[in-house]
Amino acid sequence: MALSDLTTVARNEAGIETVLGILKQRLGDRFQTGKSLREQHGHTTTYIPTQAPDGVAFPQSVEEVQDIVCACADHRVPVIPFGVGTSLEGHVNAPGGGISIDTSGLNRILAVNAEDLDCIVEPGVTREALNQHLRDTGLFFPIDPGANATLGGMAATRASGTNAVRYGTMRENVLGLTAVMADGSVVTTGGRAKKSSAGYDLTRLIVGSEGTLGVITSLTLKLYGIPQAVSGGVCPFPSVEDACKAVITTIQMGIPVARIEVVNALQMRAMKAYSKLDYPESPCLFVEFHGSDAGVAEQAGSFGEIAAEYGGGPFLWTSVAEERAKLWKARHDAYWSSLTLRPGAKGLSTDVCVPISRLAECIAETEADIAASGLIAPIVGHVGDGNFHVLVLMDVNDPGEIAQAEAFVSRLNMRAIAMEGTCTGEHGIGQGKMPYLEREHGHGVDIMRSIKRALDPDDIMNPGKIFAMLA
Amino acid sequence: MALSDLTTVARNEAGIETVLGILKQRLGDRFQTGKSLREQHGHTTTYIPTQAPDGVAFPQSVEEVQDIVCACADHRVPVIPFGVGTSLEGHVNAPGGGISIDTSGLNRILAVNAEDLDCIVEPGVTREALNQHLRDTGLFFPIDPGANATLGGMAATRASGTNAVRYGTMRENVLGLTAVMADGSVVTTGGRAKKSSAGYDLTRLIVGSEGTLGVITSLTLKLYGIPQAVSGGVCPFPSVEDACKAVITTIQMGIPVARIEVVNALQMRAMKAYSKLDYPESPCLFVEFHGSDAGVAEQAGSFGEIAAEYGGGPFLWTSVAEERAKLWKARHDAYWSSLTLRPGAKGLSTDVCVPISRLAECIAETEADIAASGLIAPIVGHVGDGNFHVLVLMDVNDPGEIAQAEAFVSRLNMRAIAMEGTCTGEHGIGQGKMPYLEREHGHGVDIMRSIKRALDPDDIMNPGKIFAMLA
Repeated sequence: MALSDLTTVARNEAGIETVLGILKQRLGDRFQTGKSLREQHGHTTTYIPTQAPDGVAFPQSVEEVQDIVCACADHRVPVIPFGVGTSLEGHVNAPGGGISIDTSGLNRILAVNAEDLDCIVEPGVTREALNQHLRDTGLFFPIDPGANATLGGMAATRASGTNAVRYGTMRENVLGLTAVMADGSVVTTGGRAKKSSAGYDLTRLIVGSEGTLGVITSLTLKLYGIPQAVSGGVCPFPSVEDACKAVITTIQMGIPVARIEVVNALQMRAMKAYSKLDYPESPCLFVEFHGSDAGVAEQAGSFGEIAAEYGGGPFLWTSVAEERAKLWKARHDAYWSSLTLRPGAKGLSTDVCVPISRLAECIAETEADIAASGLIAPIVGHVGDGNFHVLVLMDVNDPGEIAQAEAFVSRLNMRAIAMEGTCTGEHGIGQGKMPYLEREHGHGVDIMRSIKRALDPDDIMNPGKIFAMLA
Repeated sequence: MALSDLTTVARNEAGIETVLGILKQRLGDRFQTGKSLREQHGHTTTYIPTQAPDGVAFPQSVEEVQDIVCACADHRVPVIPFGVGTSLEGHVNAPGGGISIDTSGLNRILAVNAEDLDCIVEPGVTREALNQHLRDTGLFFPIDPGANATLGGMAATRASGTNAVRYGTMRENVLGLTAVMADGSVVTTGGRAKKSSAGYDLTRLIVGSEGTLGVITSLTLKLYGIPQAVSGGVCPFPSVEDACKAVITTIQMGIPVARIEVVNALQMRAMKAYSKLDYPESPCLFVEFHGSDAGVAEQAGSFGEIAAEYGGGPFLWTSVAEERAKLWKARHDAYWSSLTLRPGAKGLSTDVCVPISRLAECIAETEADIAASGLIAPIVGHVGDGNFHVLVLMDVNDPGEIAQAEAFVSRLNMRAIAMEGTCTGEHGIGQGKMPYLEREHGHGVDIMRSIKRALDPDDIMNPGKIFAMLA
């Protein structure tokens, strides 16, 4: 089935008209229908065409979210939760129109419980705002998807990033949440206890459900003590395969690496030029260790020995904050540096994740595919988790290039799934990955649909995402 | 509502008769209806009265599980999955009769992927059998609920135990699973990738669902490298409160403690006598550290300093395996040693979990409650997670004592919930904790019911557990 078939959602014109009137009256200036604002709320950082909602609501309380959802429920109008729009797979598009709920007004940090290493935040708080707020407590929230995303959006897409190898993903770091469900009711899931065996894990059900089950209105998140010492560095390898072997051994030895990122040769070329790094143009691992002074030195030493076994090195590392910051700035600027490889092009960022034993093979086949296709597409990866990204640089105004990129992405996803991996490690399904979900989960998708139908019988919560609700 | 009302399930006599005939014919000797075998399959290690199933099936393949479930589905007969019967809250009782599926014949270890640190097992494999199988690989599976439970049962109840503080619970350690659902279909969830954002998290939905959504037929589990060094010891404290403060500081400092267990004074008295331990009769922390030789020494040193700050000590620790083994044997024998406090009595083991900032208060109030009630009830706890157990020693033939114990358990659960905790950190709801789930999760229980109804419309999967399916 073509993506356009999967994502089609019929417009309920009469219902939408009615709801526009209701929300204008109820929210006043906090309900907007201007074209550019609407388009900005459908827009994401992908090649997927924007499908704007019909109006954008800016609630400031759970009760207002309930009001909006109830109005939409009464008239069967789609509800699309919106954070800051950094998602990559069309999650905030409105294929059947409807109301975007912009959570930027829900940006309070409700509690920081230092003794319990947790906090309670509203969904519109960004991860940088949270860490800024925590700076005097000695605590931090580690999940770092690159963009300064909202925590609500990160929970909705089960986001992770560079240090998931040590700290886990949003799956492991959301202790509980509250959400407004499709009928306007408010549910509180999980709690502040570190673990529980009390009933179905509704927290984990809503984390990663991409707004299709409810609108998240608060999150209880795990926090961590800022490590006493941090060391990090870069280690070149003869090949991606050698780098991956070093990663496997590092993980097997139980070295608690906090970040371990592979950057392929093409991406290193771009980063060297853009970020003025003095490294060879060969595949590299960017690594970071957290612990005590003695601990990070020991970890770095052990890693250096492992790297050498696989032909890697020299491994240059530092505990000096400024030098580390430069390295990680370069890693985080990978997207921007990549764009210099083809001036004027835009990037299609895609991700897959495989068991790490298959990672070298998956990257090698993907590099061969890129070469055979004539694409320019550097690779970076959260290699400790078997997760990697390909950024396909293309002219988004050329349908031929889009088709070529989509065909490449399709082959990449099928390759990852065939290697017992997943079509997305951290970006989510949205619209862009819908064609692959059935291939990956088979009958599981029927069960997802049954749950969706039970909790949102009229399919008003972010319809046309993750899977199609076949009639 | 009384527990007996909540757990009532109507018997479908005609359906049961029919299914008994079908399964006898299909499975031959692997289907048994003898009274003592049936009673053993309803029995659990609690005071909750046994409700025996009508027959016990011993399938040897997924297809046979499907056959059994299909027969039961066709005739609306309950299906109760059974591991080894170590659950504590009546999970394997058959209040409406039906068929117990004994998974002891599903005990193959299907794959060990050392490079990926994962394995695939059938549900009847016990945790000790798995670790025995892994002994030459340098890997281990850490989750340790005390009893030698099956991994299927541990997944179904979201079990954890002493080292969850470092390695997580079954929630974090099941990467994926297969299950036979109520309609006889087989679903495969998750996968072998370390993380995924592909659709609803069906793995986490089924983990902890206590057999009410499907019968688990295989599990993909995370494994860990056996640490290079392990050190551990025991540290006495003036009070449980001081011990808890030391734990909070230890966790906040980011010391990656592998186990940290509180034992109250009464429990220490029992353990000293039973296990011949030479420690004072004051509250103690049992701790263990995993890492490199230098790492565990550093961790133990840091912990000793923290303990001293709160009046704890002397902290005697060792890296010698035999000495550590004796300590942990004593900790694991806590149940048996407790029984010596009241010869002839049986123990009602219950658990709650609270944010660790509330743990000292919760234990103190509980100790006061025990004293006021005249109960004999020692306390041990996985204190790094805020989780603790009370073992109420009672004469299970005395209805007055049972009522008194139930009233105490009720107060304990309400106390934990009021402190933003949970009525069970690791035992599960089963039948025994049903009265508290609604108090803890409120409207969340309605959502659990909606999911149950969507996936098991005839309520055949382990009915009368977790929550009642109100008509």
